[in-house]
Amino acid sequence: MPESATAFAPGHVTAFFSIHREPDPSKMGSQGVGITLTDGVRVRLTPAEDTTVWVNDDPTVIEPVKALLRTLEKAAHVDIQTPLELGAGFGVSGAATLATALAANQVFDLNEMENTLIDLAHREEVKAETGLGDVVAQARGGVPVRLEPGGPDHNLLDGIPASGRVEYLTHGNIDTKAILSGTADQLNRAGDAALSELLAEPKLSTVFEQGRRFATDADLLTEPVARTIDQVQETGGEAMMAMLGQSVIAIDDGLTAAGFDPAVCHISQRSARLQ
Amino acid sequence: MPESATAFAPGHVTAFFSIHREPDPSKMGSQGVGITLTDGVRVRLTPAEDTTVWVNDDPTVIEPVKALLRTLEKAAHVDIQTPLELGAGFGVSGAATLATALAANQVFDLNEMENTLIDLAHREEVKAETGLGDVVAQARGGVPVRLEPGGPDHNLLDGIPASGRVEYLTHGNIDTKAILSGTADQLNRAGDAALSELLAEPKLSTVFEQGRRFATDADLLTEPVARTIDQVQETGGEAMMAMLGQSVIAIDDGLTAAGFDPAVCHISQRSARLQ
Repeated sequence: MPESATAFAPGHVTAFFSIHREPDPSKMGSQGVGITLTDGVRVRLTPAEDTTVWVNDDPTVIEPVKALLRTLEKAAHVDIQTPLELGAGFGVSGAATLATALAANQVFDLNEMENTLIDLAHREEVKAETGLGDVVAQARGGVPVRLEPGGPDHNLLDGIPASGRVEYLTHGNIDTKAILSGTADQLNRAGDAALSELLAEPKLSTVFEQGRRFATDADLLTEPVARTIDQVQETGGEAMMAMLGQSVIAIDDGLTAAGFDPAVCHISQRSARLQ
Repeated sequence: MPESATAFAPGHVTAFFSIHREPDPSKMGSQGVGITLTDGVRVRLTPAEDTTVWVNDDPTVIEPVKALLRTLEKAAHVDIQTPLELGAGFGVSGAATLATALAANQVFDLNEMENTLIDLAHREEVKAETGLGDVVAQARGGVPVRLEPGGPDHNLLDGIPASGRVEYLTHGNIDTKAILSGTADQLNRAGDAALSELLAEPKLSTVFEQGRRFATDADLLTEPVARTIDQVQETGGEAMMAMLGQSVIAIDDGLTAAGFDPAVCHISQRSARLQ
């Protein structure tokens, strides 16, 4: 057994989504689209007596990471390093859970295939209500479109061909759990409409256009996020809100050009993988 | 319209496979497993009066690349750069066709989604009989397992979690077309048996073990390839034949340790993508 293993999963910013509830967490999930980021989550997993989870050198609660190790009946120290903020719409909990599954498979010689590990992570994320579609998107990379919801045995994924620089900044957190467990009628109508529009013209600018529309129609837009997006659009850029967080993401140098001081990364060309 | 676009697709070395013939090229393909490589194919596509295909600065025939542009009713100069040898089992024709599809989508504003572009490339590769499973593997990255054959609308893919250094060298070419169009009974029996064994213990060492068994059982092993593999195994390494080519691939420094002077790259963590 190796002493420890390291895995990476990209960040994931959702543009729009609709919620699909099912009793089986492998079938439950969301439809929609998002952008995976080269800024992501690096997990170093070391077997231990008890499970501890640290993010950027501080003990932190990431429910689905702990639950995943409990499901596997293993205990480990999970050391997570990430430039992304938790709860701000970057899919950190999904990335941490998926990377933990990949690293645990290596360290504990589980000999599972990738779809099984993705499904394991997706189930824990859904059960913890920390996300519905991040894990399957992060396992794919690029700009994943979730045409059908759920884990790898049930979903249907496609992608928008795109590459390039993206910028982001954060105005604060949103309680994902409150939204994912609330009534979804208005949100789902907005998400379904946005997906139809995207499929009619599948390109990156449509992702942003429909992301902005969704944020308004689903009533998720907050004041500081709206102001920032407006400023980017007025400077000729392309920006949208990260679901679910008070964060803004822009193509190229959209935020910089509008006078902000954002973090900079790229659309991820890689999926979650062992390192 | 941008003047030109560049796309990359990883190389792909097949360990073992079985052939599934169907009248519809989107359904036709192979089951099996392979390893995608960071050494791959970079395509720069520029619209032109007539289609020309150059590989490493020489005019070269890659049938499915030309056929793809014909299907799209477009003409372009396709400039391909690759460290991999054509016809030696590295999936160069599949990678070139897939990267051409991604670049053409960008240059000609086709607004197609990734699965459509993968299917287009897969169909041309199958029709040209230059490959059966490379394109869908190269569109995924990692160590893809083709559980069901065909393009993205019909196949079922999984993966062996793996990363790390690989080495390869080439003793010459094999005529892919002659094998893919020949009788497949013995080959398919060997391929099906190897896949069953892999699924019973899905890890990288099983890929190599079953790859070696397949090469013998399908009667594809050539003398120089067999000798090279034996030398790596005798030095404690792990090597197999690249299907279909007279090439040998080894984990880590297997070929170097056995006294060879191989090319060195890594298991690709990225799928085929626009650049």
